[in-house]
Amino acid sequence: MVLEAIKYTPRSLAVLDQLRLPHESVYIPIKNSVDGFNAIKSMTVRGAPAIAIVAALALAVELANTEFESADDVREFVGDRLKYLVTSRPTAVNLSDAARKLKNLVNETEGDAKAVVRAYIAAAEKMLVDDVSDNKNIGKYGLEWAQKTIGTDKFSILTICNTGSLATAGYGTALGIIRSIHGAGLLSHAYALETRPYNQGSRLTAYELVHDNIPATLITDSMASVLLKTHPGIKMIVVGADRVAQNGDTANKIGTYQLSIVAKHHGVKFVVAAPTTSIDIQTKTGQGIVIEQRKPEELVTVRGPVVDKDGKVNKEEAKTVHIAAPGIGVWNPSFDVAPAALIDAIVTEKGVAEKDQNGEFHLETFL
Amino acid sequence: MVLEAIKYTPRSLAVLDQLRLPHESVYIPIKNSVDGFNAIKSMTVRGAPAIAIVAALALAVELANTEFESADDVREFVGDRLKYLVTSRPTAVNLSDAARKLKNLVNETEGDAKAVVRAYIAAAEKMLVDDVSDNKNIGKYGLEWAQKTIGTDKFSILTICNTGSLATAGYGTALGIIRSIHGAGLLSHAYALETRPYNQGSRLTAYELVHDNIPATLITDSMASVLLKTHPGIKMIVVGADRVAQNGDTANKIGTYQLSIVAKHHGVKFVVAAPTTSIDIQTKTGQGIVIEQRKPEELVTVRGPVVDKDGKVNKEEAKTVHIAAPGIGVWNPSFDVAPAALIDAIVTEKGVAEKDQNGEFHLETFL
Repeated sequence: MVLEAIKYTPRSLAVLDQLRLPHESVYIPIKNSVDGFNAIKSMTVRGAPAIAIVAALALAVELANTEFESADDVREFVGDRLKYLVTSRPTAVNLSDAARKLKNLVNETEGDAKAVVRAYIAAAEKMLVDDVSDNKNIGKYGLEWAQKTIGTDKFSILTICNTGSLATAGYGTALGIIRSIHGAGLLSHAYALETRPYNQGSRLTAYELVHDNIPATLITDSMASVLLKTHPGIKMIVVGADRVAQNGDTANKIGTYQLSIVAKHHGVKFVVAAPTTSIDIQTKTGQGIVIEQRKPEELVTVRGPVVDKDGKVNKEEAKTVHIAAPGIGVWNPSFDVAPAALIDAIVTEKGVAEKDQNGEFHLETFL
Repeated sequence: MVLEAIKYTPRSLAVLDQLRLPHESVYIPIKNSVDGFNAIKSMTVRGAPAIAIVAALALAVELANTEFESADDVREFVGDRLKYLVTSRPTAVNLSDAARKLKNLVNETEGDAKAVVRAYIAAAEKMLVDDVSDNKNIGKYGLEWAQKTIGTDKFSILTICNTGSLATAGYGTALGIIRSIHGAGLLSHAYALETRPYNQGSRLTAYELVHDNIPATLITDSMASVLLKTHPGIKMIVVGADRVAQNGDTANKIGTYQLSIVAKHHGVKFVVAAPTTSIDIQTKTGQGIVIEQRKPEELVTVRGPVVDKDGKVNKEEAKTVHIAAPGIGVWNPSFDVAPAALIDAIVTEKGVAEKDQNGEFHLETFL
């Protein structure tokens, strides 16, 4: 059974509540842009591609269920709502990129209000369909690159955060590459970092790996180095991307930068999986990427179902517990930047970018 | 007010329950070697120096409250109980070292049963007193080394795990160096890694830093690299040691190896604080150190007081919550080894070991 994090039919949208995974599977209805904004802001939905699609579809549902006087009314409403939706997660380039395209589309579409609404809805729906096929192409190119670069013996892979069906419209980016390598019979074992402070690795990636029966082990973020040292069968680290700068510097979940250093130290390939929508050619290097600071509470509290004295997990009773000393200050950047120098390949749905002899990526050729 | 994790008076021992910190301060009475074993095994007491002292004092209390027929009965009992206590934490060289010394002492002490018991108790009590003065000397030498190596401008320090008053008889090793540097007015800011999976950093080190009014910030283990990159004022990483091999390879809390790689990458000094009792001259390199594997539950569950909907921490209601996908495999090594090549200095109570021109430590000169 395929994991479906975004359930969409015309006039109706629901998203799997990722805050309640992996112990409960609950869908939240998204009826308009306010619901979409809240789902993104609260991290009910997460993952750069998924939030762009949910934002687009949230507004599609709202438009389908709203009466408009004129085409200009639609255009004004769409422009206003998209601007609002983008503020739910300012770092995510996919979201602002999708918003810009949709805004241009409605501005360029001629005809009456209904025609403009229809054009918007068709474009938003196409984003959903295209994302899955893009991810399957990322998986295909990633597999080919691994076969060429690492060889045809089975090998193991380490990943961070969640970049799978739960972060995208389906299949996944970095986790899509793992799926493709597993599907080709080349995967020995997958290792997932728990990915503090939000534990997307232990909650979501582990859930997907168990779901797909991929042999897998969970470790803490601090164990990556000793894992690579003691498990020479791990030949590749694959990560997603929140935003890739023109030179290949990649902003991704906090811990990605550290992982790129660790990969270099152990001579393990470090691969970024990113749809071309994550490439921000206007931003020259990682220094131009604004890093979002998140609430201290995310680091000092953890939520999950209660474990009773016998070790039994009670799915009906979820609690938030506090795990740090009262009064301590907290620094909680959401992302960091793996420098192009530490990245071996950037896998897109259009092919794989590698560095030239001068150590430079040429991402513009993929746009 | 000085933090006292080990409360000892003749015939009576109690330890601060570190599983209930930082939200509750509860002392657990230790009446005999079984209580001592359980306190160490369950991590009620932790930290290499502290567990050796608690084991020694637990048996001291038991001996003081037991009648013996003969000196040989005492010797046999002590030998048997020490052998048992060592199995509570097999990686900790301080513990096995202390046990060996105490066993030799009772075997060499002449006189009747009472004389042998008295000799044992005096030796165990001396361990407690000596540990605090050793730690203050580690702090003093660490401060001197920092002044010589880093300079006399204020700088910041990053540390992992807990190596403070809660891990020792008092003052601390790595945290003792931070205390000394702070006391000398040289510390700009202290950063603590939360130290997954057991969160000794967020629970214990953060507690001590708040307690001592040392300016401090908590981060996740995965943030160390981006912290060093964005905070050039951090000039030093200081860590404790579970065991130091002859060549300087240092086994310490999981994540220490990764931190040593990160320090090297950013050109930040990496310093080990270790009493000479942590130096295991019989073990030539880190490859000879057995790494304990701990229970998967430690990684996928977290315990703490419940936070209610308004964000209020309810100290009366502690819960364990499950934070990972059901069915995922877990790898949970308790320690890893920072290689001597990545260590700049090993600070002991007898002075600071640095590498010679060939990159070799000569730790034997400190024994």
